[in-house]
Amino acid sequence: MTDTRGTSFLSDVVAIVGRSHVLTDPDAMAGHLTDWTGRWTGAADAVIRPCTTDEVAAVVAACAAHDVAICVQGGNTGLVGGSVPPIEHAGRRPLVVLSTVRMTDIDEVDTRGRCVGVQAGATIEQIDSRAAEHGLRFPVDLASRDSATAGGVVATNAGGVRMIRHGNTRRQVLGIEAVRADGQVLRRWTSLVKDNVGYDIPGLLAGSEGTLAIVTRVLFRLVAPPVSTIVTVAAVRHVEDCFALIDAMTERGLAVEAAEIMTDAGVELVHEHGVRRPVAAHAPFYTLVEVSGTGDVEAVVIDVLDEADVVDAVLEPGPARDLWAARERHTETIARSSTTPVVKLDVSVPIRALPEALVELAAIADLVDHPCRPILFGHVGDGNIHVNLLDVPEPRAEELTGRVFGIVAANGGSISAEHGIGRAKVAWTHLGRSEVDLATMRAIKAALDPAGRLNPGVLFG
Amino acid sequence: MTDTRGTSFLSDVVAIVGRSHVLTDPDAMAGHLTDWTGRWTGAADAVIRPCTTDEVAAVVAACAAHDVAICVQGGNTGLVGGSVPPIEHAGRRPLVVLSTVRMTDIDEVDTRGRCVGVQAGATIEQIDSRAAEHGLRFPVDLASRDSATAGGVVATNAGGVRMIRHGNTRRQVLGIEAVRADGQVLRRWTSLVKDNVGYDIPGLLAGSEGTLAIVTRVLFRLVAPPVSTIVTVAAVRHVEDCFALIDAMTERGLAVEAAEIMTDAGVELVHEHGVRRPVAAHAPFYTLVEVSGTGDVEAVVIDVLDEADVVDAVLEPGPARDLWAARERHTETIARSSTTPVVKLDVSVPIRALPEALVELAAIADLVDHPCRPILFGHVGDGNIHVNLLDVPEPRAEELTGRVFGIVAANGGSISAEHGIGRAKVAWTHLGRSEVDLATMRAIKAALDPAGRLNPGVLFG
Repeated sequence: MTDTRGTSFLSDVVAIVGRSHVLTDPDAMAGHLTDWTGRWTGAADAVIRPCTTDEVAAVVAACAAHDVAICVQGGNTGLVGGSVPPIEHAGRRPLVVLSTVRMTDIDEVDTRGRCVGVQAGATIEQIDSRAAEHGLRFPVDLASRDSATAGGVVATNAGGVRMIRHGNTRRQVLGIEAVRADGQVLRRWTSLVKDNVGYDIPGLLAGSEGTLAIVTRVLFRLVAPPVSTIVTVAAVRHVEDCFALIDAMTERGLAVEAAEIMTDAGVELVHEHGVRRPVAAHAPFYTLVEVSGTGDVEAVVIDVLDEADVVDAVLEPGPARDLWAARERHTETIARSSTTPVVKLDVSVPIRALPEALVELAAIADLVDHPCRPILFGHVGDGNIHVNLLDVPEPRAEELTGRVFGIVAANGGSISAEHGIGRAKVAWTHLGRSEVDLATMRAIKAALDPAGRLNPGVLFG
Repeated sequence: MTDTRGTSFLSDVVAIVGRSHVLTDPDAMAGHLTDWTGRWTGAADAVIRPCTTDEVAAVVAACAAHDVAICVQGGNTGLVGGSVPPIEHAGRRPLVVLSTVRMTDIDEVDTRGRCVGVQAGATIEQIDSRAAEHGLRFPVDLASRDSATAGGVVATNAGGVRMIRHGNTRRQVLGIEAVRADGQVLRRWTSLVKDNVGYDIPGLLAGSEGTLAIVTRVLFRLVAPPVSTIVTVAAVRHVEDCFALIDAMTERGLAVEAAEIMTDAGVELVHEHGVRRPVAAHAPFYTLVEVSGTGDVEAVVIDVLDEADVVDAVLEPGPARDLWAARERHTETIARSSTTPVVKLDVSVPIRALPEALVELAAIADLVDHPCRPILFGHVGDGNIHVNLLDVPEPRAEELTGRVFGIVAANGGSISAEHGIGRAKVAWTHLGRSEVDLATMRAIKAALDPAGRLNPGVLFG
């Protein structure tokens, strides 16, 4: 890693961030080279941990000068291999992991403008706690909130359980600070609700998975939490019954804060691991709906449930953590219940196609000649299904992934609802994007990162 | 307009769209060359009116083959000169206006997925009426709804009175069909709430003012209208009292459907033109707030008003067109009341800066040595002010525009909240965007329209 001018790249970056923040020892780097599922692992020449935008800019400039590629890493909680580097191979240019682990500053909350500026490495939990001190809430919530970072949720345009109410992460980004591949700092930072001056660069960076620029700071919108909420779990025969329930709530003027779906297989599995069944009766599906409103919300919900076609239902004032537990414990329980690494696929279909798609996905084991236990759950209001395939022999994971994506594409759906493409889904992007669309994306990539040094192998093959 | 191969550009496009849809007669073209304010006018070699995406693609390919520039035009209701061509000058390449006036098809409404596909030339009123047949609503509403088109509101990322509730136009775009500068058709068309496969190209085209591609069809999200609304107009002493009122409504769990602000000068002017004053008492500001909720919304609003610091207030169940009239008749009344073309500037500031910015803008006449009557109104919940300067001598319009933008920039605001940059504000983009930001935009422009044939002079100088 010494260029033609004879200066050493590593000594350059040590001069920028300090020796203790340039890791080259294999043991010290190990945690940065494998994702939490254990499915994605890679190699890097160093892990660099800057602590300010200026330091990131200087590191990126040094990478540009020495033609070093960069893998950007936040909380490393992604599920598609986007936050770990590729495996080393002959001819590969040098690569470093740029970790935002030290970039955890959170600014004062602007209570009037309802926004807060944060560094890329602040976690969702940290941001939400700071907002809560002022009676506000960070609008994005997801199970990995303790580790997932601002930069990571922006880079992947994360969804989560509050998306039906507040929209995706892209929608929460009021301002952004990012370092371009050439080391220049792009800053668009105003707490303006409306600002139509040219292209939506913050929106373009959101969901770009670190391939266009490195997000270093974000100005996030905050929201007022609902005054009072009611959480209900209903056992239903058909997916359409979930829709009817959500529609009835909406028609009564209630705001839907979350709308989740689970299957009997999932609820039973979680129950076997010690979580109380939310309702005693069994049914093919269970929907958890959290609503808010004015006046006697509970009375309205009881009215709606009385008229709804449900097998059984319970309700409780929010936060109703025990009702939520049946849904939230799915991921952890599934991980503990499979004899092999779980094949985890995050897909979406048009709302109208959801009933049929769930039937087809639940029957996936019939399509293959080896054991495969599907557990499906997700955000029913968004048409978003988390497909979890347990007990799949490792060599068959790819085949099953293709089967799932085939069902999704045939139903007009997306192979990535909220987790992104990363390295895991690159081979299947043609299922959801036309050649012209992909060529347009590549043209934008080439315009902003002509040497292809930012997150090589992510999003594009 | 004959290229080196000897074929005529005009005969090529006549072969595509038919002779009657290629206008070259000056009288026939006139309406397409001047905007409705009369402030912006230009020249073109022809006006072409295709009726399908394929026809647009063929016309754009012909333009590419003959190096002809294109000015895209929807309802021509813009306020910044973005929808009319530049003035002819020596050395300019040939230019045509591509009008979407014939592209008015609206697909069947997808009631389950709550969306509808429309051609670029369908008006907001037409789309909303179609949605209303199914009990739904188009989430964007603005005064020019009878003329403004789908393509136009997407290209400018229009805001409007419902933005506080449903977000800007960008947020309503689920899918898009657009013709690139090279004539290729980019289509991303799925009624998916969540679809994280690569860059947000629809979001990038929204607000790009026709400089990156020509939007031909849009798949729009629709929303359920509120069950019942209450509209209140309150006379208040301070802008902060408007905020307090909105906050109190929100804290009681009401959804704010609109939150507007007017001044005494504006309400008086509209009153002089025959509109009933909403409240008898005079005060510096008037706020119109429309809210929805569950249960007895009126009782909650009365409670809030009782506790609020207001001079006077009235309320009425929605749609309350007579209360809205005081706000909606501003634009027309202002146009009729000025002795010179009104200087209309659409700006925004951070919410916390709004009180001070309004004071400074209202006092703008003190900064100049000629008469100038400011009427300010806008979307208070979004920090968005429509600045109207009456009786400004034409030669002083530019100076006053600069003064207004100076005040806005000093308050951390935007020189374009929801109208775009067009030709009118190109000289001031540096007030809201850094050099790196502008360079990034230019890089994206060069990547998608390397020859600069789409809307030359718009957005970039």
